[in-house]
Amino acid sequence: MSRSQPVQHVAQSTVTVHTRGRGLFEVTSRVADAVTASNVQTGVVNVFVQHTSCSLLIGENADPDVVGDLERFFARLVPDGDPLFRHRDEGPDDMPAHVRSVLTGVTLSIPVHGGKPLLGTWQGVFLFEHRLEAHQRKLTISTFGH
Amino acid sequence: MSRSQPVQHVAQSTVTVHTRGRGLFEVTSRVADAVTASNVQTGVVNVFVQHTSCSLLIGENADPDVVGDLERFFARLVPDGDPLFRHRDEGPDDMPAHVRSVLTGVTLSIPVHGGKPLLGTWQGVFLFEHRLEAHQRKLTISTFGH
Amino acid sequence: MSRSQPVQHVAQSTVTVHTRGRGLFEVTSRVADAVTASNVQTGVVNVFVQHTSCSLLIGENADPDVVGDLERFFARLVPDGDPLFRHRDEGPDDMPAHVRSVLTGVTLSIPVHGGKPLLGTWQGVFLFEHRLEAHQRKLTISTFGH
Repeated sequence: MSRSQPVQHVAQSTVTVHTRGRGLFEVTSRVADAVTASNVQTGVVNVFVQHTSCSLLIGENADPDVVGDLERFFARLVPDGDPLFRHRDEGPDDMPAHVRSVLTGVTLSIPVHGGKPLLGTWQGVFLFEHRLEAHQRKLTISTFGH
Repeated sequence: MSRSQPVQHVAQSTVTVHTRGRGLFEVTSRVADAVTASNVQTGVVNVFVQHTSCSLLIGENADPDVVGDLERFFARLVPDGDPLFRHRDEGPDDMPAHVRSVLTGVTLSIPVHGGKPLLGTWQGVFLFEHRLEAHQRKLTISTFGH
Repeated sequence: MSRSQPVQHVAQSTVTVHTRGRGLFEVTSRVADAVTASNVQTGVVNVFVQHTSCSLLIGENADPDVVGDLERFFARLVPDGDPLFRHRDEGPDDMPAHVRSVLTGVTLSIPVHGGKPLLGTWQGVFLFEHRLEAHQRKLTISTFGH
C-alpha cells in the first residue's frame, strides 16, 4: 500500500468536551466526525487540547477496567497534595494535573485512510481530565490530505 | 534555512514489524525507506503504531546499554503483576503493557529534509514491544511535503 | 469553525537554543516567529528537537513555580546516579537524561490559526534540558498549511 497524490485540503475545527471530573473520556467519534467533514480520504489528523491540566492519549477502549487502571496508576505516580510541589493555588490536584498532562501530552497525530482515522482495532482516542472538578475542554482538530 | 514551496505529495504505507518479545526494536531504516519511496524532499513524516500494548519512541541508538536501561526503568516503574491493576485477562504483563504504551505514546512526527528523516546524530526510531511474547506490529508511515 | 482550502506552503527552519543547564526554557516566541515567517494562516506547525538528552513539552507558563515543580518531579522519578543504569559514560545525569527525554518526547505538533500557533491561554512551549551542563540545542520547525 503506497500512494502519492496532490494534497488538496486542510480543514480545522474546534469542539468542546464536557468532562465530569477526573478520568478518561472517549472522543474517538468527535475526531472521526471532523475527519468526515473535512472530506480528506488519505492524510493525517492532528488533535490538540488547549489546556495544561488535561491531556490526550490513545488507549484500549474495549475493557472499562483499562481506563480505571490508568487512572489508578497516575494517581499513585503523581499523588495529590504531594509536599514536593510548591504550586498549589487551585488545591492539592493543581500541580499533579500539570505533571500528568506533561507525562501524557496534549497533541496526537493519527493517519487518515479511507476517510477515517486509521486506528487499530482496540484503539480509542481519550481526553484525560486531571482536575477533580468537571471542566469544559477545547479540542482543535486539523485534517490534512487529499 | 527557510523555504516556502507548494506541497505536492502525501504518501502513506503500512509495514509490519516482527518483535521477539519485550524490548526495543529499531525501525529507523523502515521509516527512511518509506520517506525515500514518497519522493518528498522537504516536509514531515508521521509514524503511527496501531496497537495499545507497544509504542514508539526516539532514543539513543549508539550504545546498546541505553535500550537495556530504558527497559529496566520501565519494568521498575510499571511492575508486571502489580495488584493495583484489575485488567489482567492476558496475564501479568497485560495492563503494564497498556500503561507503558500510554507513557511513551504511539505516534511520532519527524521533519523530512533532503529526502530523509531529519534525525539528530544519535537519534533512532524504536518500536517498544511491551508484551513478553513476540508479536507482529503494524506501523503506518505518512509522508507530507514537496 | 471549519474550513477547507488548498494547501499552499511547507516552510522549514532550524534554530539554536542555548540552555544554561538542567531546567525548562520557554521557546514559544521562537515557534511563533517561524510560523509568522512561513506565511501560513491555517495549518499545523511541528517542532522537533534533534537530541536524546533534552525534550519538548507544552506546559503552564504563568507561575514560575510550575516549571520548578516539573523539574523536581522528574529529578525524583528518574534519580541521577541510579544504580539501575549501566550507561553512565558521561556521568550520573547521562542515562537519566535519556529516560526523561523518552518520557516527555522530542516532537510536538500544534495547530496554526490566524497565522499563529493556536495555544491555550496558559500554554507555553518549552525545551526541557536534562543535562546538568549548558548545551546548544537544535530545533527544527516545520509549518504546513495555506
